[in-house]
Amino acid sequence: MHVNGFSCKPESNITASDFFFAGIGKTAVVNNTVGSAVTGANVEKIAGLNTLGVSLARIDYAPGGLNPPHTHPRATEVIFVLEGELDVGFITTANKLFAKTVKKGEVFVFPRGLIHYQKNNDIAKPASVISAFNSQLPGTQSIAATLFTATPAIPDHVLTTALQIGTKEVEKIKSKFASKKG
Amino acid sequence: MHVNGFSCKPESNITASDFFFAGIGKTAVVNNTVGSAVTGANVEKIAGLNTLGVSLARIDYAPGGLNPPHTHPRATEVIFVLEGELDVGFITTANKLFAKTVKKGEVFVFPRGLIHYQKNNDIAKPASVISAFNSQLPGTQSIAATLFTATPAIPDHVLTTALQIGTKEVEKIKSKFASKKG
Amino acid sequence: MHVNGFSCKPESNITASDFFFAGIGKTAVVNNTVGSAVTGANVEKIAGLNTLGVSLARIDYAPGGLNPPHTHPRATEVIFVLEGELDVGFITTANKLFAKTVKKGEVFVFPRGLIHYQKNNDIAKPASVISAFNSQLPGTQSIAATLFTATPAIPDHVLTTALQIGTKEVEKIKSKFASKKG
Amino acid sequence: MHVNGFSCKPESNITASDFFFAGIGKTAVVNNTVGSAVTGANVEKIAGLNTLGVSLARIDYAPGGLNPPHTHPRATEVIFVLEGELDVGFITTANKLFAKTVKKGEVFVFPRGLIHYQKNNDIAKPASVISAFNSQLPGTQSIAATLFTATPAIPDHVLTTALQIGTKEVEKIKSKFASKKG
Amino acid sequence: MHVNGFSCKPESNITASDFFFAGIGKTAVVNNTVGSAVTGANVEKIAGLNTLGVSLARIDYAPGGLNPPHTHPRATEVIFVLEGELDVGFITTANKLFAKTVKKGEVFVFPRGLIHYQKNNDIAKPASVISAFNSQLPGTQSIAATLFTATPAIPDHVLTTALQIGTKEVEKIKSKFASKKG
Amino acid sequence: MHVNGFSCKPESNITASDFFFAGIGKTAVVNNTVGSAVTGANVEKIAGLNTLGVSLARIDYAPGGLNPPHTHPRATEVIFVLEGELDVGFITTANKLFAKTVKKGEVFVFPRGLIHYQKNNDIAKPASVISAFNSQLPGTQSIAATLFTATPAIPDHVLTTALQIGTKEVEKIKSKFASKKG
Repeated sequence: MHVNGFSCKPESNITASDFFFAGIGKTAVVNNTVGSAVTGANVEKIAGLNTLGVSLARIDYAPGGLNPPHTHPRATEVIFVLEGELDVGFITTANKLFAKTVKKGEVFVFPRGLIHYQKNNDIAKPASVISAFNSQLPGTQSIAATLFTATPAIPDHVLTTALQIGTKEVEKIKSKFASKKG
Repeated sequence: MHVNGFSCKPESNITASDFFFAGIGKTAVVNNTVGSAVTGANVEKIAGLNTLGVSLARIDYAPGGLNPPHTHPRATEVIFVLEGELDVGFITTANKLFAKTVKKGEVFVFPRGLIHYQKNNDIAKPASVISAFNSQLPGTQSIAATLFTATPAIPDHVLTTALQIGTKEVEKIKSKFASKKG
Repeated sequence: MHVNGFSCKPESNITASDFFFAGIGKTAVVNNTVGSAVTGANVEKIAGLNTLGVSLARIDYAPGGLNPPHTHPRATEVIFVLEGELDVGFITTANKLFAKTVKKGEVFVFPRGLIHYQKNNDIAKPASVISAFNSQLPGTQSIAATLFTATPAIPDHVLTTALQIGTKEVEKIKSKFASKKG
Repeated sequence: MHVNGFSCKPESNITASDFFFAGIGKTAVVNNTVGSAVTGANVEKIAGLNTLGVSLARIDYAPGGLNPPHTHPRATEVIFVLEGELDVGFITTANKLFAKTVKKGEVFVFPRGLIHYQKNNDIAKPASVISAFNSQLPGTQSIAATLFTATPAIPDHVLTTALQIGTKEVEKIKSKFASKKG
Repeated sequence: MHVNGFSCKPESNITASDFFFAGIGKTAVVNNTVGSAVTGANVEKIAGLNTLGVSLARIDYAPGGLNPPHTHPRATEVIFVLEGELDVGFITTANKLFAKTVKKGEVFVFPRGLIHYQKNNDIAKPASVISAFNSQLPGTQSIAATLFTATPAIPDHVLTTALQIGTKEVEKIKSKFASKKG
Repeated sequence: MHVNGFSCKPESNITASDFFFAGIGKTAVVNNTVGSAVTGANVEKIAGLNTLGVSLARIDYAPGGLNPPHTHPRATEVIFVLEGELDVGFITTANKLFAKTVKKGEVFVFPRGLIHYQKNNDIAKPASVISAFNSQLPGTQSIAATLFTATPAIPDHVLTTALQIGTKEVEKIKSKFASKKG
């Protein structure tokens, strides 16, 4: 049987393991351009979260690494810094940036659906956070990847008008993103 | 008394006018760079919408005008085309673009929190739509304006890393946006 | 798989067409006694609306036509007048009528679950509105049709007591509704 | 302080009495035309229900009495028969009547927002039920009273078209309702 | 098809019986140690309650019987006393007891998720209540049964530390509960 | 102005600090009988969480320390182990214990409203976790403290019947709890 779009075991088959996850205990390998890696601990990994409206993630940052501006369409996020020091911020619908430096053990809130980022402000040491979401599957939309790497591509003229840049510049950015993937 | 953050009249003072709005009947003047104007018909304009979880907006597009990529943090949007022909699209959290051309009288859905846009694909005629939202105040976050015109500004190095462009290019885009405002 | 009672495609089969509808662009043929026709643009027509909590409808009115008193058990409704001029109203649980004349381009709110109606106040010209609902399937219960044409019928003595009329009068009304259907 | 539109005491002033109500223990006097009386045990009577999403009511029926067709805009209702025997029914949005005779100790469900009624089918004995609602203030809209006694009145032509009767008949019904009130 | 984890008939097969229940009309046999018996009238018994967010239960108390401290993880409860007189109470998260004696016809609220109990304060006569919940399946967790009879058992050292008693005492309580079951 | 029972600043006064908290970065002093201490990072500490439906807490455990059986009436909890190794468990409404040993970096879910506990299974080293909740103020009800230290006290006879122990034993437990407080 499926409930809420996720498979649901017969009650007699459920075990404590359905409420357990060991996949965010270690620093993830960060091998991308931006210098950060997100590992979810949501209903796709923990079947027992289905219908319960909460999940976690771990974010690891290389020295100087950035979790670039992104949104979670279905959740507010609260981070707890495990290690390091981050410059974080979110932008409101009134276009105000609320930014702060958060250190190990500190907490910061990114309200539902708003664009936000975290940047490791130490260029020598890694950093990491635990994120909590009030959704079993918050979803993530990374702004730049959405604009420049969607399949099929967003038409160039949409991007040139939106970003006030020329087609060449759009193509250049797209090609950079494309090469990073390859 | 306030309810839900909005003022709430004594019951005896409420009239039919509290459920009425006349401000989205006409084409708005479109005098910005992107070529579109959004006019809300939400709880800020219609007191009677408070706690009711729905609102409207009207969007007008100059010939070739764009409602640039943006999100609504608190709502799904459904548009009905009043006039003209639009190229519309949204991008999913799996980074797929769902795009379509929609004509007068047609309907399209932009799911909650996802980046989407509409472009008037006629360079000679204006276009307009009515939008419905399942929130009394859906909020809007225009992606490029958020990235390049927030106050205070998002640090350049966040943008250069995110967009894979140089500081100069970031500054150039910011200055274009700034000049458009002036 | 079904989610929320509606079938849900595998993600790879979803297309932009699942978020699109072309069925409310034209004036519906109005060939009933009351002089109005409602065409839904809800989850039964637009699969992509499933779980998203919003939908549209179009209502067309013949000259002098009435969308008779009815409720939507699961939604608030907001109308935008496409064409014509309507006398509209809803009645609160305190039995107050809030009524207003709304013209082309104007907006009116009918709060969740309350009895309301719209009447084309021009006996020469048709009218039409777009309705927005904060439900993917708001449902409609037309008061008179519910009272006089349900299957099986509501017992006469319920109606005579409720409406303070005689059995003959109830039967007469029922027969009129029955003949209109035939 | 108000929360949710209802006044909210300082925590230190709250007592068990805020969660208690003694007003639905006895048979209400039934002295109206339809032969039933509803007594609420909702947030207006029990301050402690505020934000908790549930309430009760008691309905008493004179011999042969009717709780005439009505809706609750904000709740599903479940009744438990305290005394007597009732013919009950609700009509769906597909215009089907689901009707049943329910006796002392039996339970029946009236789904959210749908028109329903209960009739004491014994012309010699009174009856009574306890109703439960999933709202702290479900609201009630009695159909006939709404149509014929709202202030200001629903225009006659709306009623004549809706009910397929003449203006005279509408006026006659209205005058009956008016005289019952006087 | 299943909706919300419960099977859902094709619409054409639904009858009024799906919204009806006759199982809480009579006093349940109370043959346990604590002297009370709870009979649910929830979605497991009434298919038509699925997705509607409300249910009932009946509780019968032997003379002096206790419905021992318990919680409903998913609902607020409101009781209506059918017969007898009860000492009832709930404890808040600030560890305050709100207690009251409630008599036939009186109402009391037990807010969502809080530990509460009801005790028949008459040692000669039985008592009974109707309970309403704002959940189709509120669930119940009886505190003592949870602590001492779960399968597998909660480790003794958890109980000794929590309850400030020795292992022997824990074992003694467990054996009493075990013998009561046998 | 208050929204949702919490004070709400004028928009112009809001700063990033309203979304920040530094109070759960360090190990709390654990100086109670059970050997654990909970420090909330909820809306009472972080004004910006108001209406956002999520919060954190930190739990520190002395060597061998126990966070004794308790519930959160308004939330599901997900823990991430910062340090040490814990034996954790929750009991379902079917009275099944789901228990597991969770180590540093591992995650476990305690579903909404169910009784659960965590025990540091190392008698030499402390442990700590970060907890996430899908409520801005989940509330906590510690079972033993609720039963034995509420003000006013739960009557002895309720506890003797519920726990199957004598009045003397109840009094003894109460006095132990009382002395621990002094």
